[in-house]
Amino acid sequence: MHSLNVDLGERSYPILIGSGLLGNAEFLRTHIRGRQVLVVTNETIAPLYLEGLLESLAGFDKVDSVALPDGEAFKTLDTLNRIFDTLLEKRHDRSTTIVALGGGVIGDMSGFAAACYQRGVDFVQIPTTLLSQVDSSVGGKTGVNHPLGKNMIGAFYQPQLVLIDIDTLTTLPDRELSAGIAEVIKYGMICDAEFFAWLEVNMDRLLARDPEALAYAIQRSCADKAAVVAEDERESGRRAILNFGHTFGHAIEAVQGYGNWLHGEAVAAGMVMAAKLSQLRGWIEAEDVARLSVLLSKASLPQQSPANMGVDDYLTAMSVDKKVQDGKLRLVLLRALGDARVVADSPREQLIEALRACGAE
Amino acid sequence: MHSLNVDLGERSYPILIGSGLLGNAEFLRTHIRGRQVLVVTNETIAPLYLEGLLESLAGFDKVDSVALPDGEAFKTLDTLNRIFDTLLEKRHDRSTTIVALGGGVIGDMSGFAAACYQRGVDFVQIPTTLLSQVDSSVGGKTGVNHPLGKNMIGAFYQPQLVLIDIDTLTTLPDRELSAGIAEVIKYGMICDAEFFAWLEVNMDRLLARDPEALAYAIQRSCADKAAVVAEDERESGRRAILNFGHTFGHAIEAVQGYGNWLHGEAVAAGMVMAAKLSQLRGWIEAEDVARLSVLLSKASLPQQSPANMGVDDYLTAMSVDKKVQDGKLRLVLLRALGDARVVADSPREQLIEALRACGAE
Repeated sequence: MHSLNVDLGERSYPILIGSGLLGNAEFLRTHIRGRQVLVVTNETIAPLYLEGLLESLAGFDKVDSVALPDGEAFKTLDTLNRIFDTLLEKRHDRSTTIVALGGGVIGDMSGFAAACYQRGVDFVQIPTTLLSQVDSSVGGKTGVNHPLGKNMIGAFYQPQLVLIDIDTLTTLPDRELSAGIAEVIKYGMICDAEFFAWLEVNMDRLLARDPEALAYAIQRSCADKAAVVAEDERESGRRAILNFGHTFGHAIEAVQGYGNWLHGEAVAAGMVMAAKLSQLRGWIEAEDVARLSVLLSKASLPQQSPANMGVDDYLTAMSVDKKVQDGKLRLVLLRALGDARVVADSPREQLIEALRACGAE
Repeated sequence: MHSLNVDLGERSYPILIGSGLLGNAEFLRTHIRGRQVLVVTNETIAPLYLEGLLESLAGFDKVDSVALPDGEAFKTLDTLNRIFDTLLEKRHDRSTTIVALGGGVIGDMSGFAAACYQRGVDFVQIPTTLLSQVDSSVGGKTGVNHPLGKNMIGAFYQPQLVLIDIDTLTTLPDRELSAGIAEVIKYGMICDAEFFAWLEVNMDRLLARDPEALAYAIQRSCADKAAVVAEDERESGRRAILNFGHTFGHAIEAVQGYGNWLHGEAVAAGMVMAAKLSQLRGWIEAEDVARLSVLLSKASLPQQSPANMGVDDYLTAMSVDKKVQDGKLRLVLLRALGDARVVADSPREQLIEALRACGAE
């Protein structure tokens, strides 16, 4: 088993990564402080893993569960309210712990519910997709979408524990595995060139779901992210580099409708756009953009804008992005492969050229 | 002008109390950091004070406002979402400041919206009722109600500034003035016996809306509350004494339907119940309970349970109160007039006797 610590002072917490962790009652008993637990999961994951988890939780006084509809389209205030309904109907008090069993949507909503229920209760993450294991389970960003913008309503809220059971990846659809790999590649691009090179060599093992390769990639991704988050928990500065490709990606998701493009797919195309813009600024080489393209292509990830989106669609959608500050669009660009920076002065013409180079009309 | 500081480390903020503050653009310019402002108010307050406030905000780049329906019945996730709708439709970014202009409901919802919008934006409180001036504007509790419980969804979130313009009390209905006085009396009961004695002498001046008496009572109430909150921002211990009378009061509000009894009225009756229970425990004298009753009576505040509520209604409603921890009901009782404690071991028979003494069947 790998284990690492996300270092945030009194809000620090451990991430445990390994096989068979869901069935290990010990870890849960150790990290859950109260006697009440609500498991939040979705209708896809419930039949696969809920029963096993409930067995591990059998020693608690009150254990309830709620299975939400699956998908980004349901990451809304209305669905969030179903978690509050359950907590109140089952009379959970302030000592309860919310356990998120599922992907990023479940993790984000459960974490936000934990942040808000009675102004804050404990929270444990059990991410079951590669994407959520390497991304949303580290760093405490929680929230829901609004029809006018993704993740516009939320909180920074840290869990007590993240439990990553590699075995849950055996049931993950290929397309979602690839979407998770997009975020793994991102860490190489923004802060870990050595890991990027490792991925170039080991991508086939990841796609074949080699447990050892997966565990290594997850642990390294979490460590990379934890280091960035520890420096800047509330994203006042450097943490924003984790949004590499995301501002473009959010525009794609917003225009396509949440769920039609997976988050990781939108981020993949968005990373190419951001890399292209970095090249136009003269910071990275065409060869660096090509290495990214090759890696994404191996993982069957998109590198082009959806055909139905024009430059104006991006510019409009990006103007409400959270990265806008006092009217200025801040983008994450690369000074070099493995070295991302937040940049507030991208010339509009270069931005448009980068979008066109990626197929936006 | 009175001014005091709520001392919470890097989350400290000033409270300014005086006449004509709404029309003073200087205070707002000094404390609002960005160039964008959304004023959140309600349909009762908007025609009275919104225009004057907007004039004071004229120097900012983007100033929008939203008037929500008035009343506790609208303190819901749905109404909260109207604030997010406005922020997103008007394209407010992370640098915006939400200004709450109204009573406690507006303050609680605006503060919670500020806590959640893009995971946290700045927040200024301009409370326009006595209740919100002496209570909800200090301490950072924000949130909305759920059909199954009051304030069940929320956050601890501190404002940048609280601006208390005494002039707004001239338009406050008598019944709401009295409801605010209930919370003022509470500070005397829980931690400030000298202030309680001052209230016994000066209640008539408060009811006659003498500006000097009002400003003094508000300043002293805020200072009492600020001292308690500074010791225990997130209510892990002593802060709970501020809930004196509230657990009973919440039960009354929940059963009567929010808004039929004003919060301060429910708290008034709840304080008598808590005082009675303290007397049954042998901690305070019948005379202390009588002094409370006389003061409440002067202010036309209720001292008895609503006629339609029985003991069981209280016990059921109180079992989901946030003050329940691992199944134990924690109540705030008085060791002496001016000295409140949180107590987890109230004998059920004494609790029932106190409720019966206050008219619950």
